[in-house]
Amino acid sequence: MVIVMTPDAAKDDIESVVDVVKRAGGEAFVSRGVSRTIIGLVGDVDHLGTLNLRSMAGVGDVIRVSVPYKLVSREHHRERSVIRVAGVPIGPGTVTLIAGPCSVESPEQTLAAAQMAKRAGASMLRGGAFKPRTSPYAFQGLGEAGLRILSEVRGEVGLPVVTEVVDPASVDLVCAHADMLQVGTRNMQNFALLQAVGSAGKPVLLKRGMNATIEEWLMAAEYIAQRGNLDIVLCERGIRTFETATRNTLDISAVPVAQRLSHLPVIVDPSHSGGHRDLVLPLTRAAIAVGADGVIVDVHPEPARALCDGDQALPDEDIAGLASLMQVMPGILGRELTPAPEPAVR
Amino acid sequence: MVIVMTPDAAKDDIESVVDVVKRAGGEAFVSRGVSRTIIGLVGDVDHLGTLNLRSMAGVGDVIRVSVPYKLVSREHHRERSVIRVAGVPIGPGTVTLIAGPCSVESPEQTLAAAQMAKRAGASMLRGGAFKPRTSPYAFQGLGEAGLRILSEVRGEVGLPVVTEVVDPASVDLVCAHADMLQVGTRNMQNFALLQAVGSAGKPVLLKRGMNATIEEWLMAAEYIAQRGNLDIVLCERGIRTFETATRNTLDISAVPVAQRLSHLPVIVDPSHSGGHRDLVLPLTRAAIAVGADGVIVDVHPEPARALCDGDQALPDEDIAGLASLMQVMPGILGRELTPAPEPAVR
Amino acid sequence: MVIVMTPDAAKDDIESVVDVVKRAGGEAFVSRGVSRTIIGLVGDVDHLGTLNLRSMAGVGDVIRVSVPYKLVSREHHRERSVIRVAGVPIGPGTVTLIAGPCSVESPEQTLAAAQMAKRAGASMLRGGAFKPRTSPYAFQGLGEAGLRILSEVRGEVGLPVVTEVVDPASVDLVCAHADMLQVGTRNMQNFALLQAVGSAGKPVLLKRGMNATIEEWLMAAEYIAQRGNLDIVLCERGIRTFETATRNTLDISAVPVAQRLSHLPVIVDPSHSGGHRDLVLPLTRAAIAVGADGVIVDVHPEPARALCDGDQALPDEDIAGLASLMQVMPGILGRELTPAPEPAVR
Amino acid sequence: MVIVMTPDAAKDDIESVVDVVKRAGGEAFVSRGVSRTIIGLVGDVDHLGTLNLRSMAGVGDVIRVSVPYKLVSREHHRERSVIRVAGVPIGPGTVTLIAGPCSVESPEQTLAAAQMAKRAGASMLRGGAFKPRTSPYAFQGLGEAGLRILSEVRGEVGLPVVTEVVDPASVDLVCAHADMLQVGTRNMQNFALLQAVGSAGKPVLLKRGMNATIEEWLMAAEYIAQRGNLDIVLCERGIRTFETATRNTLDISAVPVAQRLSHLPVIVDPSHSGGHRDLVLPLTRAAIAVGADGVIVDVHPEPARALCDGDQALPDEDIAGLASLMQVMPGILGRELTPAPEPAVR
Repeated sequence: MVIVMTPDAAKDDIESVVDVVKRAGGEAFVSRGVSRTIIGLVGDVDHLGTLNLRSMAGVGDVIRVSVPYKLVSREHHRERSVIRVAGVPIGPGTVTLIAGPCSVESPEQTLAAAQMAKRAGASMLRGGAFKPRTSPYAFQGLGEAGLRILSEVRGEVGLPVVTEVVDPASVDLVCAHADMLQVGTRNMQNFALLQAVGSAGKPVLLKRGMNATIEEWLMAAEYIAQRGNLDIVLCERGIRTFETATRNTLDISAVPVAQRLSHLPVIVDPSHSGGHRDLVLPLTRAAIAVGADGVIVDVHPEPARALCDGDQALPDEDIAGLASLMQVMPGILGRELTPAPEPAVR
Repeated sequence: MVIVMTPDAAKDDIESVVDVVKRAGGEAFVSRGVSRTIIGLVGDVDHLGTLNLRSMAGVGDVIRVSVPYKLVSREHHRERSVIRVAGVPIGPGTVTLIAGPCSVESPEQTLAAAQMAKRAGASMLRGGAFKPRTSPYAFQGLGEAGLRILSEVRGEVGLPVVTEVVDPASVDLVCAHADMLQVGTRNMQNFALLQAVGSAGKPVLLKRGMNATIEEWLMAAEYIAQRGNLDIVLCERGIRTFETATRNTLDISAVPVAQRLSHLPVIVDPSHSGGHRDLVLPLTRAAIAVGADGVIVDVHPEPARALCDGDQALPDEDIAGLASLMQVMPGILGRELTPAPEPAVR
Repeated sequence: MVIVMTPDAAKDDIESVVDVVKRAGGEAFVSRGVSRTIIGLVGDVDHLGTLNLRSMAGVGDVIRVSVPYKLVSREHHRERSVIRVAGVPIGPGTVTLIAGPCSVESPEQTLAAAQMAKRAGASMLRGGAFKPRTSPYAFQGLGEAGLRILSEVRGEVGLPVVTEVVDPASVDLVCAHADMLQVGTRNMQNFALLQAVGSAGKPVLLKRGMNATIEEWLMAAEYIAQRGNLDIVLCERGIRTFETATRNTLDISAVPVAQRLSHLPVIVDPSHSGGHRDLVLPLTRAAIAVGADGVIVDVHPEPARALCDGDQALPDEDIAGLASLMQVMPGILGRELTPAPEPAVR
Repeated sequence: MVIVMTPDAAKDDIESVVDVVKRAGGEAFVSRGVSRTIIGLVGDVDHLGTLNLRSMAGVGDVIRVSVPYKLVSREHHRERSVIRVAGVPIGPGTVTLIAGPCSVESPEQTLAAAQMAKRAGASMLRGGAFKPRTSPYAFQGLGEAGLRILSEVRGEVGLPVVTEVVDPASVDLVCAHADMLQVGTRNMQNFALLQAVGSAGKPVLLKRGMNATIEEWLMAAEYIAQRGNLDIVLCERGIRTFETATRNTLDISAVPVAQRLSHLPVIVDPSHSGGHRDLVLPLTRAAIAVGADGVIVDVHPEPARALCDGDQALPDEDIAGLASLMQVMPGILGRELTPAPEPAVR
């Protein structure tokens, strides 16, 4: 931590800061500059951070120089992690395709979408039963009935299931049906939910908040990790900017940046970021090329009848194109497409 | 709703859209332009909105022209509402000051802060018992013990209490102690929480999400209203932008804009938006001048020892200045400062 | 300046940094932390800044702790400046109203707008002859003919004129007609233009770029100041954010922040930030309340026929309201409305 | 164009709008909805756009449904364009690598960087002689001397040169030395400069403003095209968002979106967007994978001594990696790397 004194800070102000730091068990190194003095602090940063040094006389700024997350940081865990979801790996070495409908609408629609997913090369199935919607008048998902449909379809197609949980009270229910819990973009800082999924004993797919910095995203992961669960996959899904030509702005650079800062796998959602079917394949190629550990894609047998986000779902005619790129792209980075689990294994 | 066809849309494409709309019970008015055709839709917009017209051949864009919220809209409720919290009015005609500590730390600190609030002219007390914090290692609030402290201090100083609730599971607990429930910026789209506070029978202070548009903010209010609770006060608290000189960017224009769109009262939080003590008084003056129905301000007897956001809390020496501006400013807009409740009344 | 070493920086890396700094004439103070070492640099920061220390082995980050502007900084010029434009003061102590049409369209329209401005309490006239427009097909202003109209109207109403200059090549021409040169938001980092107006010998109104940080804005002012011209007035006019309900987001906090960092006066443009007539009066009140040294407002005798930004111009029926608030608001902050120049004085 | 009336618009208001439109030579189709009436306008949109319909009584909103650019639009020019710079093609079918130093510092440094560029697979050389810098105290480029160095190095390595022009007054000078003129991000809405380069008879590389929407970017291109120059290449170089982990946020989706809206080629600058050497290769891969027609990359023989943006320049040790990916990636999309011009041809 570095304390930057104001240009008019008095000698006493500097001494007071040094004093407070020493009494808190830290060390303080003073560098007197021409116009300002800076004080480097050494010690337990979390403890020093509670001292409110910024409020002391003569203090202009307090700059944290270490990262505020620990368990998810790559500083003390150099090797990038591989997370396994019912045996399916997500991490370096492979590229994992997760696909399925934005929301579960019926057994038929879900099964058809799951078969599309499988043809595209997916090794996991996505599908929403609880849907957080901006409008209370929009379709909110089938809830528990949707979870049961997902369970059944998993049995038929043999792909592990990831689905969103929106309320701490329904974590147990979702765990009973899903192989991986998704925390959505609007809930990235719903700390009660993060703590609940952290204790649930299932892998978690943590979407980046649409207005969250990469650091805040990793802090959200730290909330989950702190409850003992390090089976976390990060998902970049676009951030909110001034640009309105796309639903959100896919922050493609966040993939290598997050992978440098954290050992957790990072995947990309090209459907929700672009918000339009035509962008899904180009953004999927970009995601794999930049080094993402996987992608999660919306598919729907009849997008024109989808109850949620039909604009961005890939229809059947695009599946061959997706399958073909999933075959070609991973090899360019020396990776391979994660295969779907063997039927027998399940 | 307006459908904008692409320049190369075929005659059949136009007819298909008209057809779908008519079969859904709507009417479609076709305007054939030189380069594009547009189709005006009349009928039940919410129903038409589920038709996924955007996915049809030849459709370039679908533009909604009515607002998506109803209960909180000013379109059918011209008069601006006054919300009463244990008898204290918030709405046009008055300016209400809510003040108190960012977080409840001890009975002594809370009482001292409440007395500062009262001296400043507050008619309501704020204070956090459950604190949503970016870091799992930061102080998370005293929880239920904090709520009990707030209750006791309310008894002593006679100000109704607003405090944050972060989890649907603790709504009942918070209701037992508070006069008004606060939904914080990070939870503005925590729909499970919105529904829970909508059913709780207490007035709600709904902070704007730091990345939420005004329309999304009003949709969040609509979630609460839909559960039968229209006692909602909106609170602008700064949005996230590229500017880092302040903690957030206070969107002062949001006050008149939200008041034009909705009948609900709108207040401003100058403490969390600016993030620095020196900005609190200027921003409070600006908020009242722009027409806000109130302000909510952090005060602390010893900011340098605050466990949360000490930088932005007003210390004792600023209370006289706040009190003085609260006396002067409301009159300029023909309003008056909301008086603290009579002790006997409570 | 502070160098933050990476956690795995070697002892040699640290020594190399110290070495480079010393050879460049600076001093380096090393604080060895538990996980990281930080090095405080003392010396000529601008020179040290050219060393590319960030590229050295083991260097994680380089943090500048002093402000990069000098001439416009308040660090060495504590007192806030008063800028005089043909005798009209802008600065602390007064609130100056500048008003007029967005663009000069005809002698009649300009004269009518100038008379509205005067009735509203303005002591300066604004009006655009060169208009930077997003579309090459939009009205681009009358150019030199517009400047001549402004000159004539100034003679009739007795208000000094501020008008925009968009090209270094036309600075002399504009100087021949105007009392103050405006640099518009899109040109805030047009450095050739900044240098040209810096050498022109006229006061400059520098609008903040719609995507510029406050620091970049002050750096743009520094470009002008560096050419020997310190007669600069800063103008906050809204920044670009994700919110689309207003044309731009007025960053009201930028006023006190810029006044704390710089000795230059800061005014506000409530017309271009809000983009709508209904917001002009509320935002003008907010601007004065927050401590702005003036406001610049669009007025037009017939907004429905304006060739540019008619939506935001105040029509005649709003002038009385503006005049009345200009009389009342400055006094609240112990200021007074800057009077229009005496006819005889001109 | 669509006019949305307010819910309380009177019958007369609607008739007035229809009247005004008809008198202006347009047609108006009225759709009376339950809560609002909308009016579809047909006719000369640019002319109708000057009517200020938004200011009329009862008008709530005016929505433009056609794009405001023409010459650069793909609506009337379906085939994507190939731009040739001294014989080097940029467009569909190929991927063009442009590389070189951020700024020209000396003949030796420029030659060394040009040789690195060539080894990497570049067919064009970049290098800045006029540098727009945020600080007036930063290195501003060698100016004309830098242009002469570029000319000489071009002779030696045989790569056409693109370099930035920052002032209309120096367009002729830059044209005398360069094969392509670059308009930088800060000048994207410097309309005087756009018009000057539009008349200069050289191809133009138009960088996207860091706060410009894609539509504004295309409007800036339209300014150049309107002067008779359609040899324009668009360059996405990152936009400004709240995220500070990267210098800017590369808007990778802008590539396919701009290619769908405009026939002009679109390339990507992975150096300035990421701002860090480690991000250049991943972002280059992503750019080619998403379908960019080229990339422009900073290289420097000694980044630690670079006078400008040394953090982001690729050093010699990364050239082999860049060369290898430039060989592999284009083929995935059925393209080929644009070869450097034959020495004889020049």
